[in-house]
Amino acid sequence: MRESDLLRRIYERSAGLTSRFAQVLTGPGDDCAVVRTGTGSEWLLTVDQVVEGRHFLRGAPVERVARKAIARSVSDIAAMGGTTRGGWALATGAVPPGFERADALFDAMKKWAEHWGCPLVGGDVASTGEEEVMVLTVTVGGLPHPVRGPVLRSGAQVGDYVYVTGTLGGSLGSGRHFSFEPRLAEASWLCETLGAGGWGLHAMIDISDGLGRDAGRIAEASGVRIEIDAALLPLSPGLGAADWRRAASDGEDYELLFTAAPQVEVPETCPETGTPVTRIGRVAEAGPDGPAAVVVTPERTWDVSQLGWEHGED
Amino acid sequence: MRESDLLRRIYERSAGLTSRFAQVLTGPGDDCAVVRTGTGSEWLLTVDQVVEGRHFLRGAPVERVARKAIARSVSDIAAMGGTTRGGWALATGAVPPGFERADALFDAMKKWAEHWGCPLVGGDVASTGEEEVMVLTVTVGGLPHPVRGPVLRSGAQVGDYVYVTGTLGGSLGSGRHFSFEPRLAEASWLCETLGAGGWGLHAMIDISDGLGRDAGRIAEASGVRIEIDAALLPLSPGLGAADWRRAASDGEDYELLFTAAPQVEVPETCPETGTPVTRIGRVAEAGPDGPAAVVVTPERTWDVSQLGWEHGED
Repeated sequence: MRESDLLRRIYERSAGLTSRFAQVLTGPGDDCAVVRTGTGSEWLLTVDQVVEGRHFLRGAPVERVARKAIARSVSDIAAMGGTTRGGWALATGAVPPGFERADALFDAMKKWAEHWGCPLVGGDVASTGEEEVMVLTVTVGGLPHPVRGPVLRSGAQVGDYVYVTGTLGGSLGSGRHFSFEPRLAEASWLCETLGAGGWGLHAMIDISDGLGRDAGRIAEASGVRIEIDAALLPLSPGLGAADWRRAASDGEDYELLFTAAPQVEVPETCPETGTPVTRIGRVAEAGPDGPAAVVVTPERTWDVSQLGWEHGED
Repeated sequence: MRESDLLRRIYERSAGLTSRFAQVLTGPGDDCAVVRTGTGSEWLLTVDQVVEGRHFLRGAPVERVARKAIARSVSDIAAMGGTTRGGWALATGAVPPGFERADALFDAMKKWAEHWGCPLVGGDVASTGEEEVMVLTVTVGGLPHPVRGPVLRSGAQVGDYVYVTGTLGGSLGSGRHFSFEPRLAEASWLCETLGAGGWGLHAMIDISDGLGRDAGRIAEASGVRIEIDAALLPLSPGLGAADWRRAASDGEDYELLFTAAPQVEVPETCPETGTPVTRIGRVAEAGPDGPAAVVVTPERTWDVSQLGWEHGED
């Protein structure tokens, strides 16, 4: 079984959760869960792990590891159109003996959590063996956009255009997987710009495992086909014009991938941050083989739904 | 540095969090954090890790490991006088390759989370190396008692009596560390019984690391001395009359330890569950050496504040 199969099983078993538990508005399977309090407020909830040897190498600077651990969960809040301002974070660490490094790590996580407005309100630390890998987890609670509400993966509609913020590819080589800026400002701006009440913003995800795989997730959740034009992909510096495959599969970009109604005007730049927004494709009806994400090149059409980082493929 | 020193540093750095972030009512250092939504609802938040080789042995049945992982966090909600009904859970697993076991594990965690009314709404799974230990984390959001509000560790007052639910000691040997029932019903009952609006219930904690150490935490947070009479300790079956030290240090009891105003009548049994409630001591002024928890025997007085399980002592 691969990790994606395992997650699929977990999601399948969670079907019906929202009808059995009134507090659950969105269960497992999106960037965040959405829960409701008794007084009607909603929280976006997400948890992510950062594992040594996989998300960072042993010996990586504590400051960078801590920032990445927090930023990954913050990015999940952005992917729902939400904000971490007014939110909170919890962190755990299973760390090798010798807590000096853990102390510096938690100090840096605290700093970065506060930077994004979601202070660390609790956590847990446990020592493991000297030879064990370090595992950090960060849970973040954030707030959906007050007017648009949570932007799910499942809202893409046939006829939508597909957009991406920033540039794609080469994140691991360039170190951007450590220094990326979660797209909170861009997410809020999209909720406020794309039609009154954000109605024109249909579906969104952050690209963590690669454009192909993450576009496939929107396709799957929405029951559609995402068609991406290779020639339109905004490539990161250092990638050549022929590197569409890397842009679609490198992963760890933490850019926003979203679909919007075709009649909505999508500006080419977020005015607050200067982040470019690029139209890269469109949403079509699912083909006979079901939902998929494809990249179209002059030669042929490539199914990229499984392209990218299989976190935990065995 | 020991784990307790590390946690102390983390708590110290979090002083002032509640004044800088309006959403934070209680920050790190209690059984749960307390956060407030924009509409004024409050959530109790807690996260705990379960580490192979420390909280369970390799090869332990998946069902028991999953139950314990959920129940530990549920117990933290009970320790604040709260409930997990209407709440939610998030779980992560860093697990060795071969996801069949992880699948069974998440299925069982889902079942137990729903059992206590806080369904799993999301999570993450990552595979580690074959030789790595498994690390699970469970985050739970629960609700404080609607009238009494969160019961903190810091509310003990000089003159209070000290009580404990259930019996203490021998949890690891008897397997009760796997099968314990989080004291949700007892916590609600105490909030409703001990004085109008629960005003007579002053401070509470769940005993995870041992009565001595956890009583020491109430003492420290409240700036008092907790005096426990060895002869009054309710010992678990299998412990002899002379085993007060084991009752004070074995840990993993997951019973409630609380202090209450002396004029409040505390029933000897929770009517809903039949769980015994035993008065074991009183709260006195901190001595010249500062806050502490002590056990009094006919021979002498023992400082037990550091007795118990130092999770992660190195």
